[in-house]
Amino acid sequence: MLRMNKKIAALLVSLLLITSIVFMLATATANTPTSTLNNYNGVAPKYVFMFIGDGMSYPQINSTEIFSGKNTFKDSKTPALRRLSFSNFPVAGACTTFDATSFCPDSASTATSYSTGYKTLSNVINMDVDKKVKYKTITEMIKEMGYKVGIVSSVSIDHATPAAYYAHQPSRGNYYEIAMEMANSTFDFFGGGGLISPKGKNNDQPDVVETAKKNGFKVVNTKEEILALNKDSGRVIAMNPVVDKDKALPYEIDRTDASLSLADFTRKAIEVLDNKNGFFLMVEGGKIDWACHANDAATAVNDTLAFEKAVNEAIFFYHKHPKETLIVVTGDHETGGLSIGFAATGYSTFYEKLNYQKKSYLEFDKFVADYKAKTNADQAKLEDILPEIKASFGLITSTDADAATRKDMVLTDYEVQLLKNAFKQTMIPSGNRKYTDGEVVLYGSYEPITVTLTHILNNKSGIGWSSYSHTGSPVPVFAMGLGQELFNGYYDNTDVFKKLKSILKIK
Amino acid sequence: MLRMNKKIAALLVSLLLITSIVFMLATATANTPTSTLNNYNGVAPKYVFMFIGDGMSYPQINSTEIFSGKNTFKDSKTPALRRLSFSNFPVAGACTTFDATSFCPDSASTATSYSTGYKTLSNVINMDVDKKVKYKTITEMIKEMGYKVGIVSSVSIDHATPAAYYAHQPSRGNYYEIAMEMANSTFDFFGGGGLISPKGKNNDQPDVVETAKKNGFKVVNTKEEILALNKDSGRVIAMNPVVDKDKALPYEIDRTDASLSLADFTRKAIEVLDNKNGFFLMVEGGKIDWACHANDAATAVNDTLAFEKAVNEAIFFYHKHPKETLIVVTGDHETGGLSIGFAATGYSTFYEKLNYQKKSYLEFDKFVADYKAKTNADQAKLEDILPEIKASFGLITSTDADAATRKDMVLTDYEVQLLKNAFKQTMIPSGNRKYTDGEVVLYGSYEPITVTLTHILNNKSGIGWSSYSHTGSPVPVFAMGLGQELFNGYYDNTDVFKKLKSILKIK
Repeated sequence: MLRMNKKIAALLVSLLLITSIVFMLATATANTPTSTLNNYNGVAPKYVFMFIGDGMSYPQINSTEIFSGKNTFKDSKTPALRRLSFSNFPVAGACTTFDATSFCPDSASTATSYSTGYKTLSNVINMDVDKKVKYKTITEMIKEMGYKVGIVSSVSIDHATPAAYYAHQPSRGNYYEIAMEMANSTFDFFGGGGLISPKGKNNDQPDVVETAKKNGFKVVNTKEEILALNKDSGRVIAMNPVVDKDKALPYEIDRTDASLSLADFTRKAIEVLDNKNGFFLMVEGGKIDWACHANDAATAVNDTLAFEKAVNEAIFFYHKHPKETLIVVTGDHETGGLSIGFAATGYSTFYEKLNYQKKSYLEFDKFVADYKAKTNADQAKLEDILPEIKASFGLITSTDADAATRKDMVLTDYEVQLLKNAFKQTMIPSGNRKYTDGEVVLYGSYEPITVTLTHILNNKSGIGWSSYSHTGSPVPVFAMGLGQELFNGYYDNTDVFKKLKSILKIK
Repeated sequence: MLRMNKKIAALLVSLLLITSIVFMLATATANTPTSTLNNYNGVAPKYVFMFIGDGMSYPQINSTEIFSGKNTFKDSKTPALRRLSFSNFPVAGACTTFDATSFCPDSASTATSYSTGYKTLSNVINMDVDKKVKYKTITEMIKEMGYKVGIVSSVSIDHATPAAYYAHQPSRGNYYEIAMEMANSTFDFFGGGGLISPKGKNNDQPDVVETAKKNGFKVVNTKEEILALNKDSGRVIAMNPVVDKDKALPYEIDRTDASLSLADFTRKAIEVLDNKNGFFLMVEGGKIDWACHANDAATAVNDTLAFEKAVNEAIFFYHKHPKETLIVVTGDHETGGLSIGFAATGYSTFYEKLNYQKKSYLEFDKFVADYKAKTNADQAKLEDILPEIKASFGLITSTDADAATRKDMVLTDYEVQLLKNAFKQTMIPSGNRKYTDGEVVLYGSYEPITVTLTHILNNKSGIGWSSYSHTGSPVPVFAMGLGQELFNGYYDNTDVFKKLKSILKIK
């Protein structure tokens, strides 16, 4: 009887154990990650940096590290990747990026998650999915606590990611309303590109810049004025003297001395914001994303290097205030489905070939537009633009004078055919093009000849692309400084807000 | 003069600061990551699990989480991903995977890094780049310390990843020599698929199985024998009764009750190995990689789910020995350049469509082979195989009876054309096919009709592929248990060995 009871007891204990483990597995596999640590007990940092590489996930970072290492260690036997300054931070975690309705989210919803801790729809800035409730941002919270707030981007200041740090709009396309929220904000530094719609869609609204000035902002837009900014400049809006058609800074690969860099803006923001009550600075590398949308790896890695230099400004500051600073560096989502490896190159990569590229797809588009403007479609020949193709991408035909010495850059018959097809489409006015499903995959919404050229150069380099949109891969989160340990693990993008909120002791 | 000196002093201090920061940046960007913590001061775990999902990086894990969540939370408004048990571990880091000469490494070199801490050439198992020096493995080290050692894989036991935990060979293709190292090893459990070359290439060498038996191994290969294994079974080699042409377990999507699962082998390994001196168990999910090589997402996510179930066996054990156990779960490299998002589907994904797929590409290949065997090439018609295409992948033509209710599965004209082209190639004996460069990208080395079908189904689901090989993306490393904290951060795959060595107090 006793023996029987022992057996029953053992059975009960086993059952209890199994039940508890099944429960554990069930909860472990529910939607809330356990690797999230959102409670901080240390001292709040006085200086907080939030760097967001738009469209920058592991493949973008790792590609830049390979490109950069190949340059540095060309003769080394072992492949050398140069770790970026921020990928060497003491803490590295990762987060998921899906938004309220999509696994391939946009920059509005993902930046809303970082800024407010909520998931919302793609396209929406700091409002709920019904576009009724406005969410309070981390910058608004911390401003109330006495910190100064700065926002810097390599794209226009009214673009989705920077906007998510100061505006609340049902649509990211409300550029005028977004910019007006900037002009009426209590924040201290806005810097980067220009404004897309400073007088409204019909150019008949009160001027954003004038409103900002009335509200006490110093507005500067020359290189001299911007470089002269300092801690005595007061509240500042600084707009780069050189911008592209979307009011963004030039791509780093195209940038001349006439234009400030993202690092310049970051350094000046730090100088303006630096004060005894501390500051919060968000810096976006916005055109990594745009280059990846266009499937242009050389432009993307060069912009990632420019982003690294901006982060280095914060690292420089950190080393002056190591016990009062936190730097977080992350991306908002992956763009392009970039892969280090391609079907035709198998296990080999040739990132050094990216060095042949001398301008972005966007600058090449300008050349194409010029050519189209002065050439009749029925007289246009691919041969006409071969010299510019060579100069811009290093790609040559078998009859080129350099064909013998640059064999690896000679276009194959197949590649020439791809270019001929694309050239034909390019010469059709974009409104009149009728794509097959296959051509949609080949060109997306880009200039057919240009995107075919970046595809060919990238594929020859051992780089693949699968999309012209954002993809659903997680993004890394790097951290250094006070509270850094909270960023270890694999969590959700809304947790990044929760961690910062805890670290900053926001009630 | 004093004033001057003060200025000079200030200048000197500034210079010193700048120099030290420049030095810091320079060293931070050198080849050694600082986020590596390889020193452990705690108690060594008695039970150590090393799980390797071959070809499994973020996209594979996240895809499985999306696929799995979609099924569970179909009616939810917010996209739900079901976090896998191991992606919810308290610690999640990441590591780089490049080997001695390639950013797209193979499983031999990457498993050598995990097993020995050295980088070597692709193809090489635990030897140096000159194929002269044999590296000692972590399993050999820990066996000397009294732990039992077990090795489990869903592919053949002599395959690269499992081999890296017991063999030392200049080529992963030395299947006989590798298997002989197993037969002569002092280890305690080998389980999974079969052996590729148990009697040598010419079938004239001493039999590996007989040698193993002579050396005291119990060799079992029926379901009953394997399920009857327990702590009294002694040293065991357990080979699944059902294997594919490569002596691997069937893909999970194809597996019937006749075959054991990876979880079954893991559970039996634990039972055999469990002893008071502890054990080290390596478990490989080997066919996630193979499915990704073939660009077959449904098969890959189902094998990732099978891998999760194997990990759950370790979690079950962990909860019985929470203070004596460490579980590490990682991948060895990414395969296929899988992306969550595709050019033609933009920001949308439709992972639920993967549910239409009822068999792996490999099983469909068998159908194709049968069809080819009984059909003259000049009489073969795509129409003949449409019913099987519908049954296997859910893809239908516009004239199909279900076309009205399954609109999203109807093949477009473009997709039908892709299938016709592929079908034509399929009907040519593989040795006689002459691919254009474009066809190389379309088909790789796979059966043209089959890989085109998985591409179409995957692309319709919003999934992209860019390669048939491994790619260079970093892989996540998840950990739970004693020493888990060392696996935080972003480090190199050789560090995983160093961390385990420190945690296990190996001299």
